[in-house]
Amino acid sequence: MGVRVSPGVPLLIVMINTRYKIIIEYDGSHFFGWQIQKDQPTVQGAIENALQSIFQAPIKVTGSGRTDTGVHARGQVAHFDTPRDMEPSRLQLALNHFLVRQGVSIVRCEKATADFHARFSAISRSYEYLVVNRSAPLALDAKRALHFYKPCDEGAMQEAARTLIGTHDFSAFRDSQCQARSPIKTLEEATVTRDGEVIRFFFKAPSFLHHQVRNMVGSLLMVGSGKWTPVTFREVLESRQRTKAGPTISPYGLYFLRADYTSGH
Amino acid sequence: MGVRVSPGVPLLIVMINTRYKIIIEYDGSHFFGWQIQKDQPTVQGAIENALQSIFQAPIKVTGSGRTDTGVHARGQVAHFDTPRDMEPSRLQLALNHFLVRQGVSIVRCEKATADFHARFSAISRSYEYLVVNRSAPLALDAKRALHFYKPCDEGAMQEAARTLIGTHDFSAFRDSQCQARSPIKTLEEATVTRDGEVIRFFFKAPSFLHHQVRNMVGSLLMVGSGKWTPVTFREVLESRQRTKAGPTISPYGLYFLRADYTSGH
Repeated sequence: MGVRVSPGVPLLIVMINTRYKIIIEYDGSHFFGWQIQKDQPTVQGAIENALQSIFQAPIKVTGSGRTDTGVHARGQVAHFDTPRDMEPSRLQLALNHFLVRQGVSIVRCEKATADFHARFSAISRSYEYLVVNRSAPLALDAKRALHFYKPCDEGAMQEAARTLIGTHDFSAFRDSQCQARSPIKTLEEATVTRDGEVIRFFFKAPSFLHHQVRNMVGSLLMVGSGKWTPVTFREVLESRQRTKAGPTISPYGLYFLRADYTSGH
Repeated sequence: MGVRVSPGVPLLIVMINTRYKIIIEYDGSHFFGWQIQKDQPTVQGAIENALQSIFQAPIKVTGSGRTDTGVHARGQVAHFDTPRDMEPSRLQLALNHFLVRQGVSIVRCEKATADFHARFSAISRSYEYLVVNRSAPLALDAKRALHFYKPCDEGAMQEAARTLIGTHDFSAFRDSQCQARSPIKTLEEATVTRDGEVIRFFFKAPSFLHHQVRNMVGSLLMVGSGKWTPVTFREVLESRQRTKAGPTISPYGLYFLRADYTSGH
């Protein structure tokens, strides 16, 4: 190969990057979370390694939000820029070739405009938390759900969950390591439904505090098992004290379902 | 302890065994199938080891049916006799103490009458087969379902599945290793339903041939993808030739759902 340069003509190299948006499913039990860490398997690290193999260049991947060790995703979103253009369906196949045996699947891959940002363009995130409510321990769903063996009233939990909708100071459900500037967040949706022995919690908000979903569900289960009334639950929220709330429950029940963007993204 | 024997009175020791019926959930991806094998982890072996630890005696466990390597169960049934009586809920806790980290859970444990036999008393078995129908490979369900990436028409498969109901010579869907005396079986139910990208096959019969469900679904997918019509499918069944039928598909999509017994068992 080599570039022919006419003598006297200045050589101008313009790097034209292509931005891609990907939607990612992963089994969180295989990873130390989303964010890249030295010497630990992470989802971001796995995707960056695959891109390095495909493009023979270091490429940084930006996710719509971090997930902790053990947390799963059905629809995590990320973007990255590549030094050369590739047809999205070919890039998806190439990525999945490297990722599939690691517990990661790129379920969609498309070109994005240069102003698309997986984190800053997102207008909402949705999470699901799964609880299996039965006396026997979990075999098939051991790393897919929380096992809750006490009888649990989903109606009382749904009533308590309604308290969470709207704008609140969520300090009672905020991890001490949380780096958000403010504990004030706006929850758009909060539902609790049962299908047989499976209880499903769904939450949607522009953004969440660290451990917020696991802490909210940990406290809702206090209501479900009859230890607290929905009124106690509201008092816990209003206390803004983490020590008054329930435990931070298992990451294995938590699923990052999707991030939503304004139309055009 | 020790037994006091009055001189001159003959000592009569009567071993009174208690029979138990258990219902078992397991993650088949951890095991070389149900049936005990030397030097390989099996579900029967795991339960027999747990019983040995609890009763300090060898106890044989009899399942309602064998499952192959990789096949899961939500409701396998088994029975066994113990040399001493134990409260069923205590026995269930003790078994789960040993089994839970191995991917096995005893979801029910009860005393059974001496004539109860998990295999011979069963009047029907039900299996489910799960297919995820999408282009992207599976991350979360990699060992829980078959990945089928071609578009798939569940209506055509349901039509073909109806052909299977009733009494037929199922040689076309019988494994060459099958030890059943006859290839004639009676299928009571066969349904195909879709929920989003998940296609669910359900089959109920007094008994099945070896690999019968995986072979039937392998052929139904030939109809779903448009390679065969439901008429071709019927001709394959009627040919009684294994070589004319579709492939034996992955064990990871197969779930032993339950065994049914006459009332009283």
